[in-house]
Amino acid sequence: MSNDHTQPQTVAELGEFAVIDRLVAGRHQPPAVSLGPGDDAAVVATADGRVVISTDMLVAGRHFRLDWSTPHDVGRKAIAQNAADVEAMGASATAFVVALGAPAHTPASQLTQLADGLWDEARPLGAGIVGGDLVGSPALVVSVTVLGDLAGRAPITRGGARPGSVVAVCGDLGRSAAGYWLWHKDIGGFDALRRRHLVPEPPYGQGAVAADAGAEAMTDVSDGLVADLRHIADASQVGIELSTAALVADYEAVVDAAAASGGDPWAWVLAGGEDHALVATFPGAAPTGWRVIGKVFDGPARVLVDGQVWNGYAGWQSFG
Amino acid sequence: MSNDHTQPQTVAELGEFAVIDRLVAGRHQPPAVSLGPGDDAAVVATADGRVVISTDMLVAGRHFRLDWSTPHDVGRKAIAQNAADVEAMGASATAFVVALGAPAHTPASQLTQLADGLWDEARPLGAGIVGGDLVGSPALVVSVTVLGDLAGRAPITRGGARPGSVVAVCGDLGRSAAGYWLWHKDIGGFDALRRRHLVPEPPYGQGAVAADAGAEAMTDVSDGLVADLRHIADASQVGIELSTAALVADYEAVVDAAAASGGDPWAWVLAGGEDHALVATFPGAAPTGWRVIGKVFDGPARVLVDGQVWNGYAGWQSFG
Repeated sequence: MSNDHTQPQTVAELGEFAVIDRLVAGRHQPPAVSLGPGDDAAVVATADGRVVISTDMLVAGRHFRLDWSTPHDVGRKAIAQNAADVEAMGASATAFVVALGAPAHTPASQLTQLADGLWDEARPLGAGIVGGDLVGSPALVVSVTVLGDLAGRAPITRGGARPGSVVAVCGDLGRSAAGYWLWHKDIGGFDALRRRHLVPEPPYGQGAVAADAGAEAMTDVSDGLVADLRHIADASQVGIELSTAALVADYEAVVDAAAASGGDPWAWVLAGGEDHALVATFPGAAPTGWRVIGKVFDGPARVLVDGQVWNGYAGWQSFG
Repeated sequence: MSNDHTQPQTVAELGEFAVIDRLVAGRHQPPAVSLGPGDDAAVVATADGRVVISTDMLVAGRHFRLDWSTPHDVGRKAIAQNAADVEAMGASATAFVVALGAPAHTPASQLTQLADGLWDEARPLGAGIVGGDLVGSPALVVSVTVLGDLAGRAPITRGGARPGSVVAVCGDLGRSAAGYWLWHKDIGGFDALRRRHLVPEPPYGQGAVAADAGAEAMTDVSDGLVADLRHIADASQVGIELSTAALVADYEAVVDAAAASGGDPWAWVLAGGEDHALVATFPGAAPTGWRVIGKVFDGPARVLVDGQVWNGYAGWQSFG
């Protein structure tokens, strides 16, 4: 750098290693991380001799838009949706690795803001970003892998639901879908809903609570309530019946936004993904903080809403 | 699909879930995997209460070209370079998760071939592909995270090299760079070198051998021998001296290809990355199968070649 007055700005100007140094500098790893970033690999303690692992990739223009989200929002969302996957097993997140693909003209500050978002979402979970990769890519790509700790519990799969059990949810439904529609239609106000689309708020800690309360089957609502319950119905070979009467609070939270924007509030509640609520079945009572929204019944795999097959929007699919 | 004569071909035609079913069908997980793909997360046993983790992202047009590599080659390369990272800690790979970003027009068969390549490289290691994600993306992106098992060993970092120790390498140098040049110049013959560029052959199992033989510092050669040894020199605050006389076998393996293509054989050997050889320092003798190529000396962090600062190509950098 011969000219001190010119501050390097893009990742291409700074180079891979200098940008990585900026992303890693000054972060504090939690105690479970015995070796953090900077070597060929990291080392993380696994207290009960097992590790939960899941991965999710976010691509600019498809899973987020940088004219809606700040890079900080994108970082928080990437951590939240991965952490929700380990919560849905009855575990809690302990560590993340993050591979970033970025166009050469990406401002380095955008990546440091994204890393700040990653850390701001991970830190309250007691988890760290323990490693990563940074490469050139035609679009910004954020690929996160999460490690989780079951603390001795059996993992709660999608396959354990049994007839007679109740279906209960923890966390919000329909808010992210409402927020997406408001952004898409460029309708102001409803700031909390618009915000929720950019940064989901999974009910952290409640996956372990559900497991300890005897949850038989669990998943997080990433594709939409009916679509995700269908995954439980298929894996468990049971029917699931939902009651809209039990979902009125979610409906009421989005009905004004629907009226202002011409959206369908029940479609948001029943089929809107990305809120990352947890939904589980319990053979007895659901734990405090969980709302009973339906029941499991015998028979072929299907999801009924108020006794009927629901013919609304089928939930998010890639390439849809 | 109303028309039985038209076989769906692209990921957009088949849809995310149907493609994932094809990628996952018929795979056999190793015993350490207590829960494989198909749920919110996987669960893997960690015998010694720790897990090694690393991640690498490959992007089409940057890290591979589908007019050079088959999708199967790309899958093998993605696993190999990640497995080499855990080998470089003195560990062995136990499990992988793979996030794929693919354009909507990608033939589904391309992704099943890629998955076959992932499995064909992972299976001999005793490791499985335990989870993944599939999303839309403007270019094919393969983001792999590897888990590794130290089997009770201390991790071998880059920071433990001490003056007086020998530097030794296991695996080949310069072959991948030679192969790249031959592909780039469209020069036929030299099939083994061309092949090696598409699918590296890390010396699997030798990371643990080195650790058990007392390796103080270790890394894999991904950016180039001098560049990667510079990482050890920096982390250990030592000087490293290489002897080209000890590298003659590598030089001889590529010199004919260099003559035929106008390449620089010493640049390939000293600065060619992607062979994923292992390089380590040992206070005593190097183990069988390792070649001594230099020594560690006191003083500021630097890498000398035959006593001189080497001013060749500085090694691979993203955004370079």
